[in-house]
Amino acid sequence: MAQPPSIPKGTRDFSPMEMAQRTYIFDTIRSVFKLFGYQPIETPAMENLSTLMDKYGEEGDKLLFKILNSGDFLKDADPSLLSTKASDKTVKFISEKGLRYDLTVPFARFVVQHRNEITFPFKRYQIQPVWRADRPQKGRYREFYQCDVDVIGSTSLLNEVEILRIADEVFRRLHLNVLIKLNNRKILSGIAEILGEAEKITDITVAIDKLDKIGLDGVNKELSERGLSKETIEKLQPILHLTGSNFEKLEKLATILAVSEIGCKGIEELRTTFGYLDSIELQTAVELDLTLARGLNYYTGAIIEIKSIDTSMGSISGGGRYDNLTHIFGLSNVSGVGISFGADRIFDLLKELDLFPQDIQQTTKVMVTNFGEKEELASLKFLQLLQENQIAAEIYPESAKMKKQFAYADEKKIPFLVIIGSEEMESGLYQLKNMATGEQTKLPATEILALLK
Amino acid sequence: MAQPPSIPKGTRDFSPMEMAQRTYIFDTIRSVFKLFGYQPIETPAMENLSTLMDKYGEEGDKLLFKILNSGDFLKDADPSLLSTKASDKTVKFISEKGLRYDLTVPFARFVVQHRNEITFPFKRYQIQPVWRADRPQKGRYREFYQCDVDVIGSTSLLNEVEILRIADEVFRRLHLNVLIKLNNRKILSGIAEILGEAEKITDITVAIDKLDKIGLDGVNKELSERGLSKETIEKLQPILHLTGSNFEKLEKLATILAVSEIGCKGIEELRTTFGYLDSIELQTAVELDLTLARGLNYYTGAIIEIKSIDTSMGSISGGGRYDNLTHIFGLSNVSGVGISFGADRIFDLLKELDLFPQDIQQTTKVMVTNFGEKEELASLKFLQLLQENQIAAEIYPESAKMKKQFAYADEKKIPFLVIIGSEEMESGLYQLKNMATGEQTKLPATEILALLK
Repeated sequence: MAQPPSIPKGTRDFSPMEMAQRTYIFDTIRSVFKLFGYQPIETPAMENLSTLMDKYGEEGDKLLFKILNSGDFLKDADPSLLSTKASDKTVKFISEKGLRYDLTVPFARFVVQHRNEITFPFKRYQIQPVWRADRPQKGRYREFYQCDVDVIGSTSLLNEVEILRIADEVFRRLHLNVLIKLNNRKILSGIAEILGEAEKITDITVAIDKLDKIGLDGVNKELSERGLSKETIEKLQPILHLTGSNFEKLEKLATILAVSEIGCKGIEELRTTFGYLDSIELQTAVELDLTLARGLNYYTGAIIEIKSIDTSMGSISGGGRYDNLTHIFGLSNVSGVGISFGADRIFDLLKELDLFPQDIQQTTKVMVTNFGEKEELASLKFLQLLQENQIAAEIYPESAKMKKQFAYADEKKIPFLVIIGSEEMESGLYQLKNMATGEQTKLPATEILALLK
Repeated sequence: MAQPPSIPKGTRDFSPMEMAQRTYIFDTIRSVFKLFGYQPIETPAMENLSTLMDKYGEEGDKLLFKILNSGDFLKDADPSLLSTKASDKTVKFISEKGLRYDLTVPFARFVVQHRNEITFPFKRYQIQPVWRADRPQKGRYREFYQCDVDVIGSTSLLNEVEILRIADEVFRRLHLNVLIKLNNRKILSGIAEILGEAEKITDITVAIDKLDKIGLDGVNKELSERGLSKETIEKLQPILHLTGSNFEKLEKLATILAVSEIGCKGIEELRTTFGYLDSIELQTAVELDLTLARGLNYYTGAIIEIKSIDTSMGSISGGGRYDNLTHIFGLSNVSGVGISFGADRIFDLLKELDLFPQDIQQTTKVMVTNFGEKEELASLKFLQLLQENQIAAEIYPESAKMKKQFAYADEKKIPFLVIIGSEEMESGLYQLKNMATGEQTKLPATEILALLK
């Protein structure tokens, strides 16, 4: 045999069993999205590179899968660039499309492009694969699914609460114990402001983001390495030392950030949000975490991250509030908030914790035997009767020995067998075999049908 | 505003309404596949170009979307090819992956790659998008969905019958009147053989494939242009003149093809297939059509095509029997038969014939009003109660005038409104408004819940 075929690294085939498990996750998430009044959209796998470029930072641009123009793609390429093999600068001449990198940028593009057909506030969900030319490793794929839910066109903090309620309900239904971490970008801005280091906000947040991993001394050391003065680091200490309930932390912060207008606004937003949460009671704990600093490039209010409690796996879901997402496509003043569920991480987690429901795989319920030309027709008619009654059924497609047909039904985990041989045809009593118990009973066709229904 | 964003030509965004309509098609097809015992698989969007190239003919190779290698992709390109801008010859140096062109080749690759994990006969279905760099036009897209169902690893003609029964059931459920055309590749081979023109089989079939369009004289003229002798064309006439029922046609053909072993085999196969069909009675007519000559490169037995009766739209589904599909990946003697449903053509057809069910779009069932801080909490609690009872519901996210909230519910076609103002809070009686009739009734929360459940 020739070299066996393979698929590109970082991509996967999904077997019927894996499909059943993935469908369970998607169906669960989708049903919650619907329950909360969100509607689906889909966008093309390919977007114009002008839509995708400069949206994910320099690193992101490199991770975009770019599609070679059709036909004579080298025609317009600059010869001097080709002769020096300047790959980076040649790209724009030979490729004008790329595969979507996430669902957020295509969503922003969709909203701007279809703004006249959309009823705002627009509550949409989107479950589609995305592609990244990342280095593949455990739990990181080059093709993976995102499940995004966003409401756009409303600044109300009720939306933040709704997004958290959705997450709460999704993980409750999946029987996953999670912790929701909540922060607010305005508070991070406020902190940078009172430190007198507004332009160093990224350095500060990157450092304090590591508090869990490297401890307080480590963070302080890193802040110093990132060029913050001893005095500034001193000022930051009370913030790093905050303890107590969410409201207690906010109380202390309010004092520290009193002089920062934006900081106070952030505290106000979180107070309102936690206030709502107090009155509706989620199953999941929501914890104020000032070290949460994801998506600083686009989030302007709430920052959300969800982690599994029972494993060391990192974030399995994240989101936040963005005020300027559609601005990049020329539409301003449209604020939104949303969250993205990483289906592949949730899949790995459910597998690790053995939380997939038993008997998740939908197989045929009955197999009808096939013992040759004469019996075949009787089998075929009974098969038809089963299917007309919406019972998933199949006939063994070839006349074969009982043993072979049994083995097939057994391997496919088909729970019932109906045996129709010449004896059964004469007596009019077919044999129903329960594959789990081995029990075998002779019954008229109508009774078998009634039993299986 | 900047240039409004757009998507690549030949691709589409799908709105919530279009998603609902497409989901209806996919769900219908999927439910039939399951009823017949088929199981889902999925394969990656990207395949290695070595898997895809040389499988679809020269034209197909050109229509493959190729993905530019990541990083310094020009590094290994031949400088002399670059300097002469030889696009065709440069491809293999700068691209090693492509987007899947259909679901058949990835399925063959899947079967070979996973042959040790598969229970044969393997009954699988696959519903995924494919991409082709075709010239976009009405009804032809660069990204479109295929719904394939195949059984592989069995030569039994019962499988052909099953595939036809699946098609029959799919179109019955979609309320589409269709005609199934059936032919057999072996008969076409037999015809070419008795004409003494075995190597001209493609010329002959291409010409007779046009019988409907250009008439008998046109076909004869074209055959002559394609280099067939007057004598040969004479010999072909009885075949082009075949009339009568399927069995009558086969009877006459049996005489004509008596000396061709392969021709006789084809007649035998069709007799058996039509024999089965006689005893199980499909709703759809199945017609022997000797001019049906699709997929000659890979089909080895049955050739199937399905057309809409009520419109001029061409083929909406097609398939056949292949004996050598996995051979290209080194696994021989695995025969299969399958059919592919073109979801996008079916979509256009259902739209044209206005056959989508009414009220297909799943929206929220209830919207709860929002009249400010105090009322909001009562609204939020009632919303939660609705959702806990699995009623899809939403709250208007901002405190706004009644009129604005009405307009939103109306545009989103939400059937019920629950109005909770200060008066309602005091009396404990909420107002339930039926948006279709305009009827408005004051009721206790529990009764509203019971009514909506």
